[in-house]
Parts: sequence; structure tokens; C-alpha cells
Amino acid sequence: MTLAPWRSPLARALHRNRSRPYSRYLQLATLRADGRPANRTVVFRGFLPESDRLIFVTDTRSNKVVSLGDAPAAEACWYFTQTREQFRLGGTLTLVTAATVEETLQVARHHAWQALSDNARQQFTWPHPGQPHIADGFDTPHPDPTAPLDGFALLLLNPDQVDHLELRGSPQNRWIYLRQENSLVDVMVRDQPKGVIAAPSWRAIVVNP
Amino acid sequence: MTLAPWRSPLARALHRNRSRPYSRYLQLATLRADGRPANRTVVFRGFLPESDRLIFVTDTRSNKVVSLGDAPAAEACWYFTQTREQFRLGGTLTLVTAATVEETLQVARHHAWQALSDNARQQFTWPHPGQPHIADGFDTPHPDPTAPLDGFALLLLNPDQVDHLELRGSPQNRWIYLRQENSLVDVMVRDQPKGVIAAPSWRAIVVNP
Repeated sequence: MTLAPWRSPLARALHRNRSRPYSRYLQLATLRADGRPANRTVVFRGFLPESDRLIFVTDTRSNKVVSLGDAPAAEACWYFTQTREQFRLGGTLTLVTAATVEETLQVARHHAWQALSDNARQQFTWPHPGQPHIADGFDTPHPDPTAPLDGFALLLLNPDQVDHLELRGSPQNRWIYLRQENSLVDVMVRDQPKGVIAAPSWRAIVVNP
Repeated sequence: MTLAPWRSPLARALHRNRSRPYSRYLQLATLRADGRPANRTVVFRGFLPESDRLIFVTDTRSNKVVSLGDAPAAEACWYFTQTREQFRLGGTLTLVTAATVEETLQVARHHAWQALSDNARQQFTWPHPGQPHIADGFDTPHPDPTAPLDGFALLLLNPDQVDHLELRGSPQNRWIYLRQENSLVDVMVRDQPKGVIAAPSWRAIVVNP
């Protein structure tokens, strides 16, 4: 597949800011059940293979899962402190749980679990997050590193609009990428057309900062 | 007035992370006109005097102002990279423009304008943000540093729920502060009661991370 055009500047930002571990932290805004916005820091866990979908991990007991409901619109805001640039990624969320049937997604869920540290995996054995504190239940054994616990889930963000702002320079540079309706794209194998598939295309606009 | 109980840990975080200028950057989530969440980086400009309201500055032409409408619910997410702690501040927004009558707010607007750098003030003279890029109109003279331009506005965030998470330690520490209905509070002058005023009170809960 062809990567979306915003993937290249985002990969460059990740590379240039790689010495700071928190460059993989970003803020994900969603809607609460009562319609108010919610906003929390999440860790970028890479892209779903052969796609432009960002992977985050979560606990199915967390509010962000409970409040997803039927309107899984979201916007991630990702600020890179070293290169001083911001990506805003607006789109829709998909939850991948133990019950998800689609094999590609279930494989990704297993891979993400295996990629976590022991300490990160252990947190899924802890008492209910956000509930009044109890002292016991945190001294649990490390869970099996190969088989995800039932409460372990992925959140996939599928962007349909990306707003990239570089603060360096005056005036600053800013681009907006808009996903268009799927269009038919030639599938080429060794430069020979082998058929067509439906794929999203993107429109890029240079805008005022 | 009495400061809200989350002001003390937030002040401590600002102090301990003060060597990193981007510690004053946070992400503000609001709702778009179509109901989807929006999320962008803003700069913390201090608190409105004698209040727990956070000050941000904005351009009245920006989308976050246009989309405020009648439902100014918001949640700010503030991650401090050095001490590894997060504050989520949920509440409501107030816009303070050239047309705002309340004197305290208009004074704060003037002070915020005067505290900006020349370069930051100049941006309010630039072409419409977010519109297709035009090459001209960025080479403008610096505006009067004492009198704010008409397009300069404040956004005030009045929190009603604050969620503080310290990532250091295992298990991590987490507190939730909830604003309660106003209650009557004794006004004391030199330890002598001088009457009562209605003031918000807060409930603090220690919760599981």
C-alpha cells in the first residue's frame, strides 16, 4: 500500500526527537458519555502493519474505553519538544479486545502485549483504575508475556485529517492533509498493472500558521 | 480567597520542571461545531488573580474560538516530562475579547497582551490562520505593546475536576479533586471573623492508578 503523505514528516519528527523517550507520548481527546471532552496522555506503539492506523494500548476497565460508545471520534495532539512541531491527528477509533474476530487485529493485539515490559503488563492485573484507592492487590505476579490478559485492548486511531505545524521560523510552516473518498488505484507488480483496488487518497494544503 | 487544593501540587510541578520551557505547554481539548473533539497545544499564561482559572491567549479568528459556541466544556491535559506526572483539568471555558465589559477580565486581557513578546504580538496582525497560504502579509510592523489588537482574546479555563497522576513509583499515585457546590466560608481578617462569602469547596479522593 501507499502510505499517507503525512507519514513522512511524522516519521522524520519521531527520528529527530528519538533521544527523548517522551517523544512517543501524545494526548488523545475523546468524548465522555455526557458529551464533554476527555483528554489524556497515551503512548504511541507504532502503526498497524500495512495501514495508517496508530496503535495505543489500554485497559478495558478505563474510562476511555467505557466512554467510547457509538461515537468514537478522537483527535490526538502530538507535540515534539526538540524540533518544536505539532501534529494534530483527527479521526475515528477502533477498539480491539479479546473478543475481536478479525485476525490481523488479534495478531496486532498479541504483538503489542508481547512488546510491553513486565511492569507494564503487570498493571493489567491491578485493582480497577480510577476507583477509590485500596492498598492491596498491587503485589501481583507478572502475567504470561505471550498471552494477553482479557482486559488488555488496543485502540486504533484512523486519521482523516492531519494538521502539521512547525513552530520554528517566522512565519511558521503549516500543512493540512485531508483524506478523500476512496479512489481506484492501480496495483503494480514489477511495473506491470495487476488490477485495481480501492484506496484512500489525500489532499495536502499549505495554510497560514 | 483560598486556593483549590490541586493548586499546590501543580505549583510544585511547574517549579520542578521550570528548566524546560515547554513545561508551560499543555493540550486543550474542546468540541468542534460538528460535535467531534478538537485538541491543540496551548501555552499556560498564569492564573487569573484571586481565582483558580487558567489563562491562555488566542486569536478570535482561530477555530477554537469559532467552535466554542454554547458548550464551552474543555479538558486540558498537562504532562510534565521531568517529574513524569500528569494533570487533567476538566471544566468550562470563558472567552475574554475586546467587547468584554467585566473590568477584572479586561484588565487581565491587557496584562496578558503586555506580557507577550513582540514576535508573539505580531502574529495577531498576520493573515487568517488556517486559511490557504498566502505569501504576503507576514512582514508587518510590531503592534503597540500596550493596547491589545481587537483580535486578541483570552481563554479562561475554570476547572471542576482535576486528575493528578504521578508515574514515578509502582503502583503510581493518583488523586482526583472534585469541585463541590458553593458553600459559605468565614472571611477572617487578622484571625477575626468578618462575615461569610459563598466559595467553592473541593473533595479530594485517592484513587487507584
